Amino acid sequence: MAAAEAVKVLGAYGSPFSRRVELALRLKGVPYEYLEQDLANKSELLLEHNPTHKKVPVLVHDGKPVVESLVILEYVEDTWKGGHPLLPGDPHGRAQARFWAKFIDDKCNSAVWMSCWSRGDTQKMFMEQSKENLKLLEAELKGKKFFGGDAIGLVDVAANFLALWAGILQEVNEVSVIDEEKHPELWKWSRDFLSSDIVKGCLPDREVMLDYFRSKKEAILLTKAPVY
Amino acid sequence: MAAAEAVKVLGAYGSPFSRRVELALRLKGVPYEYLEQDLANKSELLLEHNPTHKKVPVLVHDGKPVVESLVILEYVEDTWKGGHPLLPGDPHGRAQARFWAKFIDDKCNSAVWMSCWSRGDTQKMFMEQSKENLKLLEAELKGKKFFGGDAIGLVDVAANFLALWAGILQEVNEVSVIDEEKHPELWKWSRDFLSSDIVKGCLPDREVMLDYFRSKKEAILLTKAPVY
Repeated sequence: MAAAEAVKVLGAYGSPFSRRVELALRLKGVPYEYLEQDLANKSELLLEHNPTHKKVPVLVHDGKPVVESLVILEYVEDTWKGGHPLLPGDPHGRAQARFWAKFIDDKCNSAVWMSCWSRGDTQKMFMEQSKENLKLLEAELKGKKFFGGDAIGLVDVAANFLALWAGILQEVNEVSVIDEEKHPELWKWSRDFLSSDIVKGCLPDREVMLDYFRSKKEAILLTKAPVY
Repeated sequence: MAAAEAVKVLGAYGSPFSRRVELALRLKGVPYEYLEQDLANKSELLLEHNPTHKKVPVLVHDGKPVVESLVILEYVEDTWKGGHPLLPGDPHGRAQARFWAKFIDDKCNSAVWMSCWSRGDTQKMFMEQSKENLKLLEAELKGKKFFGGDAIGLVDVAANFLALWAGILQEVNEVSVIDEEKHPELWKWSRDFLSSDIVKGCLPDREVMLDYFRSKKEAILLTKAPVY
């Protein structure tokens, strides 16, 4: 059995969540087969492997599916212990990383998304939420190159939306949520993260994503809800 | 240093989340000091140890805080590897447990809570959500005594709200979300879980909770939002 046959990622080009999984596997040096999914017309493979949520990403390892991107990152760390560590070795460091990854999922990503894709009072509320929550990420990054310290770790991988997607959405919607002056640490982190070779090779093309979100702008504004 | 001095739990009597932490520590046989928190008048200790969310539970181990109940359960498992295992030993089993714990937090607890504490069309919507999501838990329990197999594991601990609180809220609001006929597996699980000695010693008193929620009924109905 070739290793590349054993590991499959069901993903979508523009999904920060499936890019998290790819990035974790690449950091670990695990070869995988990538299977792009059409989310408008879900494949039997996707429905069979993620019957609960019917969404990407799914990691299939030796025929067994694992779903939910943060759960997959833990699985990757658990399974391929050698190579690049995604979590610190000590329990407290691991707990801190899990805390921040959850914080990014629960408190930052959707607040930033909604700050970009809403207007009026709703937008004001989400901008305020984003401001408060990003301030905590700023403090967490202080004195460190990455959330993981000197090297990219699970929290950095989990924060990929803030590094790439957030900037694109800000540009499309002409709003400023994360900016260099108010968020110097996040700004620097974002630059360092995006310029890492392994990250660069594992993200969608910025121009393609810009065009995509520009073309969908009116439709997304109408839904007023996270659809990423 | 006595072990009991080293481990502290900041909790609240009626919180399923802080009860999760206590239950995990008791399953592991780790002595701890319990510090009841007044959530209407938050202590310096709570604010200092959980400045981000300012809520219970907080586990303080050798002076270092860990917050977010599922993160704490992982920390307990990581730190006290001996004794009762909360997670399976194999990476896929661990991923499955993490998936279900997250599913219970994201998809079941709030849907059941809102099914009890809303009325009219909103209630109908949450009842429908609860029905769909509980059906998946039913299937997951099939052929097993506990989510963890023969013994209580992390998912069982995470599901404590469904075992005790859900029944109390149903009684107070005269609704039926989880019932014996529609959910025979969950019903049996709930009975087995609640009759375990270690669980019995680690839950709030049913009558006290009934009185509490009865006395708060009108106030909670007005907020129309999860407040547990």
